[in-house]
Amino acid sequence: MRTIYSPRHAGHAGNVELNSGAIVPAFELPRRAEIIRDRVREVGLGPIEAPREFDLSVAARVHDRGYLDFLPRAWPMWAAEGRGGTAMPFVFPVPGLRRDRPPEDIDGLLGFYAFDAGATFVEGTWDAVRASHDVALTGAALLAEGERAVFSLCRPPGHHAGSRFAGGYCFVNNAAVAAEYLRGRGHERVTVLDIDYHHGNGTQEIFYARGDVQVVNLHADPVREYPYFLGHADERGTGAGEGANLNLPLPWGTGIEPFMAALATGLAAIADFGPGALVVSLGVDTYREDPISRFQLDTPDYPGIGAAVAALGLPTLFVMEGGYAVEPIGANAVGVLTGFEEG
Amino acid sequence: MRTIYSPRHAGHAGNVELNSGAIVPAFELPRRAEIIRDRVREVGLGPIEAPREFDLSVAARVHDRGYLDFLPRAWPMWAAEGRGGTAMPFVFPVPGLRRDRPPEDIDGLLGFYAFDAGATFVEGTWDAVRASHDVALTGAALLAEGERAVFSLCRPPGHHAGSRFAGGYCFVNNAAVAAEYLRGRGHERVTVLDIDYHHGNGTQEIFYARGDVQVVNLHADPVREYPYFLGHADERGTGAGEGANLNLPLPWGTGIEPFMAALATGLAAIADFGPGALVVSLGVDTYREDPISRFQLDTPDYPGIGAAVAALGLPTLFVMEGGYAVEPIGANAVGVLTGFEEG
Repeated sequence: MRTIYSPRHAGHAGNVELNSGAIVPAFELPRRAEIIRDRVREVGLGPIEAPREFDLSVAARVHDRGYLDFLPRAWPMWAAEGRGGTAMPFVFPVPGLRRDRPPEDIDGLLGFYAFDAGATFVEGTWDAVRASHDVALTGAALLAEGERAVFSLCRPPGHHAGSRFAGGYCFVNNAAVAAEYLRGRGHERVTVLDIDYHHGNGTQEIFYARGDVQVVNLHADPVREYPYFLGHADERGTGAGEGANLNLPLPWGTGIEPFMAALATGLAAIADFGPGALVVSLGVDTYREDPISRFQLDTPDYPGIGAAVAALGLPTLFVMEGGYAVEPIGANAVGVLTGFEEG
Repeated sequence: MRTIYSPRHAGHAGNVELNSGAIVPAFELPRRAEIIRDRVREVGLGPIEAPREFDLSVAARVHDRGYLDFLPRAWPMWAAEGRGGTAMPFVFPVPGLRRDRPPEDIDGLLGFYAFDAGATFVEGTWDAVRASHDVALTGAALLAEGERAVFSLCRPPGHHAGSRFAGGYCFVNNAAVAAEYLRGRGHERVTVLDIDYHHGNGTQEIFYARGDVQVVNLHADPVREYPYFLGHADERGTGAGEGANLNLPLPWGTGIEPFMAALATGLAAIADFGPGALVVSLGVDTYREDPISRFQLDTPDYPGIGAAVAALGLPTLFVMEGGYAVEPIGANAVGVLTGFEEG
């Protein structure tokens, strides 16, 4: 399996996050991607290649134009006010407030285009986001050109980013962009399978009314877990998308057996849907020692997940999402991929 | 003029806020209320009295029940997880996410019931909020009993709190609760006039569809100023409230002349509406040295504002809102009141 990787993610570094009322270093770190890349090399998964360059025309089909225009402007606007550190929103357009008039002030814009304080900007953020987008699209292009499986080692991740909101370390929804690309390249139906610990609220929101892109999510029950405001089992899609969204929320403490049972349910729904290609939002924060998550999967469990996905027999693009137990992230993420190759 | 004041506000202390990506001490401090109280005494405005006690039945007519139930639970839920410091939300139910299923987790609930990270909880917060609510209602009750004017020295302030969201240092909307009380006590129409530097987005949201409570707001243009997502001139009310909402946004740098011109427009609209009583959301962050605001009013300007309001000839309740230039806050706030008395 080829791996697509760009070192440009490393410019998105030194970010902080708001956690329990305090500012702490972000759990989403450059080292995460480097450890995964090293593990890919170590196990000989296949070649590691640089991404091709893509324009934002596919991204503009899943994201709001104003949102995409703002992302590269965020840091320069922040810096133009003489501010350093990390650009972070603090006020948000919840229902009852307006969302039809973008403010002209950086603090207003940061919140206007976000649902949490968790997608923060430093000087190198946009370049890293752009590269991560290219990494995802290069994988999708290779799939369209006939590869059976590709690993897009994206960083920053993307699945919390919605049509017009950043959040949860995510800016451009790499998996959604890749799925949209594949839809435009001969596949009538595409599925995004999200196995990150956290619900992929951005991906769901983007495709919720569409019948051509199925979204299947396994994740911690949002009643007690971030992102809280999406990911319940009763969210089945709407309009043309009715029935094309499947959420499989699982309780804190979930281990590999119930996880695999839920995965089997998800895979059966995918087989029923009959997509021509599969995009896997690959998070490994389901790991038992993840510092911000509460599932109980262990390193030897991950290859079985890959093998189960392989059994679908679909062209498959793996897009990297979360996982914050830094040292084991390589073994866990690449474990899914080797399991897929051997499956 | 009688002043209603409770020392219980002082338990809401040591709060922090998220400002330019950093955690800083909150600008909204106990000392603010104490300086105003001292100034009331110094100028001999009138007696300073403790509030009566009220239940939450009037508050429940302007706030969501689940929201009111959550406020006293926020700190205990936070503390039950072994957390100290300040309880602050970080993730919010913006459009595209759900707002019909309250989470069971404290981080989820804090965000579910907020629009920013700016209304934070410490152990004494709920008791202070409860007392501030009583301070507002005691003033409203005195007005209903025949007083011409009363000063409810509320802290925490209230005007950013909406029917189901906290934010901007505000939890219960004291001015809205007072207006609702007056509506139930013989006045067919009541007006809230908000002269705080920031738009009273909570008050507007609460009464936006009601024709019996007019809301008139003078404030910094939200295109460049907090709270950003409400307060534009084209917001005129909806349904039965059509025409009963008036926003008078003003640019950064506004001094007393354009401020008084806008106030005259607002007062004319109030006279047209013909309310039986007036609630003034009194903020003095319009002051030229306010640390987080950008108007240019000076201390000698405030009595003229009070005099202009007095010319309406209405029973008037002043409810304290913002103002963060701490030392001058007494002279500025009480200046409005003495101007009213002499007007």
